[in-house]
Amino acid sequence: MRSISIFGSTGSIGQNTVDLILHQGGPAAYRVVALTGNGNIPLLARQARALRAELAVTADPAQYEALKAALAGTDIAVAAGPEALVEAAARPAEWVMSAIVGVAGLAPGLEAARHCDTLALANKESLVCAGPLLIDTCAAHETRLLPVDSEHSAIFQALQGEDRGGIERLLLTASGGPFRQMTRAQMAGMTLAQAVAHPNWSMGQRISIDSATMFNKALEMIEAQVLFGVAPEAIEVVVHPQSIIHSMVGFADGSIVAQLGPPDMRGAIGYALNYPKRRPLPVDRLDFAALAQLSFEAEDPTRFPALAMAREVMATGGLAGAIFNGAKEAALDAFIAGRIGFLEMAEMVRAVLDELGGAVDINVNQISLADVMRYDTLARARAADWAAARV
Amino acid sequence: MRSISIFGSTGSIGQNTVDLILHQGGPAAYRVVALTGNGNIPLLARQARALRAELAVTADPAQYEALKAALAGTDIAVAAGPEALVEAAARPAEWVMSAIVGVAGLAPGLEAARHCDTLALANKESLVCAGPLLIDTCAAHETRLLPVDSEHSAIFQALQGEDRGGIERLLLTASGGPFRQMTRAQMAGMTLAQAVAHPNWSMGQRISIDSATMFNKALEMIEAQVLFGVAPEAIEVVVHPQSIIHSMVGFADGSIVAQLGPPDMRGAIGYALNYPKRRPLPVDRLDFAALAQLSFEAEDPTRFPALAMAREVMATGGLAGAIFNGAKEAALDAFIAGRIGFLEMAEMVRAVLDELGGAVDINVNQISLADVMRYDTLARARAADWAAARV
Repeated sequence: MRSISIFGSTGSIGQNTVDLILHQGGPAAYRVVALTGNGNIPLLARQARALRAELAVTADPAQYEALKAALAGTDIAVAAGPEALVEAAARPAEWVMSAIVGVAGLAPGLEAARHCDTLALANKESLVCAGPLLIDTCAAHETRLLPVDSEHSAIFQALQGEDRGGIERLLLTASGGPFRQMTRAQMAGMTLAQAVAHPNWSMGQRISIDSATMFNKALEMIEAQVLFGVAPEAIEVVVHPQSIIHSMVGFADGSIVAQLGPPDMRGAIGYALNYPKRRPLPVDRLDFAALAQLSFEAEDPTRFPALAMAREVMATGGLAGAIFNGAKEAALDAFIAGRIGFLEMAEMVRAVLDELGGAVDINVNQISLADVMRYDTLARARAADWAAARV
Repeated sequence: MRSISIFGSTGSIGQNTVDLILHQGGPAAYRVVALTGNGNIPLLARQARALRAELAVTADPAQYEALKAALAGTDIAVAAGPEALVEAAARPAEWVMSAIVGVAGLAPGLEAARHCDTLALANKESLVCAGPLLIDTCAAHETRLLPVDSEHSAIFQALQGEDRGGIERLLLTASGGPFRQMTRAQMAGMTLAQAVAHPNWSMGQRISIDSATMFNKALEMIEAQVLFGVAPEAIEVVVHPQSIIHSMVGFADGSIVAQLGPPDMRGAIGYALNYPKRRPLPVDRLDFAALAQLSFEAEDPTRFPALAMAREVMATGGLAGAIFNGAKEAALDAFIAGRIGFLEMAEMVRAVLDELGGAVDINVNQISLADVMRYDTLARARAADWAAARV
């Protein structure tokens, strides 16, 4: 019986993880230490019952009673609040999925890295805001870190059996999002509903919008740099609208190894779940004759300024990622709330980077969670200032 | 100083190998034990001088004096004839390229497998006609076998760090050759010059024609089965006209790992030369935005019956490969000599398989080189009978 925990089990990644655990035997094959969610109490309770979890935690203290009630009659322990998440992460488990969205996932992810054997990482912020901290924590506790983003899983798969010293470049593929073929003028008028409609992947609202702005790809560039230890200039973005090639590694000899699959998150999740084995997964098999064509385009820095910002952030290092991410989150909040337009998201982030990105204490080697949270807050505040000044 | 030998150094693969050896330091970095060629004495002598080979061998006894004269004034030893090839293969070398074309490469390849550390294999016949024999010989002498065909090198690269038990299917890509878009009626009238004009790869005449008939892909299916130990039905062919994806492996979890590169044989040769390291090679780097599109089509069994024959041969096993290859070689000879038309090559091979493929002593587990040569001769004789009966 393998012991596992899932942080963020009610989100898109979390639900797929639960599905795969059930597909692979459920509670007969896994001892489920903890499941955590946020506001979707009925789903969290249903998952906890199905997997016979030992503990269910909601991040929202106000939902404690609701979760307690939903799990009445079971012997599943219940807890609530951010501290309870971290306590759940301190419970030893062989395999942990870190899939909480946003900086809220940072503290539980870091705590889990200290107490598990394998950390499957879907929380982007752990790497973008606190990459070196997470990498060092995993190294100190001999925790295996497995990426769950399809792009990074692809690179990780392509690097199996290869010497990382032989990497010449990492080619991150990008669908280009729903506005790939629009002019800047057309993009300016895009609404929330239009931004959420991703052409290939079924994902949460926030990550779908991040795909439309390509901020998602910008975060992934930073993640790739941290995960695979390459120079920022070795990371390229290739627009590939079909999302079949999930990413590629170019080696010193000019050879490229790519990982391909249907756009189905269960591929990368299942890979992380079963690594280093590969077990049959309930995903479609690619039929190349039916696909007929895979296409590629260069990135467009004018319509998608996020990628150039990522290069800047990687060059600065230290806490620049926390600022970048905080500003991006604030911009996303403002767009979702209807306070700013689609293109203004990038303008807001640009303004915050200009204001905070040159601070002397940003380019540091040792960063703490407290530093990250401080700069996250600061970036969000500056973003709010920018929005206020603009009106 | 690494010791190396190149069998078939004057052919297309051999010349590229010599170029890479020179690129990587030439005689200052390698001790060249033996170079062998056939009729191109000036080139063989030039290569032997450039690499300061210890021995140069021509397969043609009638060329002995010419080679001796061409190497006068050097201390390079000279030999000629098929036995001399095998003797050269018995000289220990750390790395050996087996790139003689045809069944003539069989005996020296098998002998080299007994005396080298790493056998880089470009001679298809070694696997198609005598696969189990070569695999067993390598295993008995702890010789590392590295494929040099771009397709098999791609699969080998995709399998790095992977458990072969996790293979679900091998996807061999095929350019489709110069007649990919023709009707059967058009193909019937194709000439030697048209068949030799491969759209992507610069290769020798015989292999180019084998690409046009897709007999080359048929041989590669059999090679893949022998090299990677998969079931015949796990081998798929995907027509991919650009020849950028060199082949792919589909795993049990639905994930596909592919190897890509420019259509340049130096990629696969350099990989085999430097394995398990990857050293910078003088090949173009892929630019995906410039490529713009990769396309895929299903194989067409009506116009290219060679692939179905390969499946039959794999199912039969034993000496069926030797018959298939012998008949194919005879058909190629007849087409090059203008005695049969393009489509008749497949008809000839079909007739020979029908006649010999059901013999009781074909499906054997233990095969010898003598068996292979006997069935090769028999297949060629039956092919000649078929051509004679037809007139």
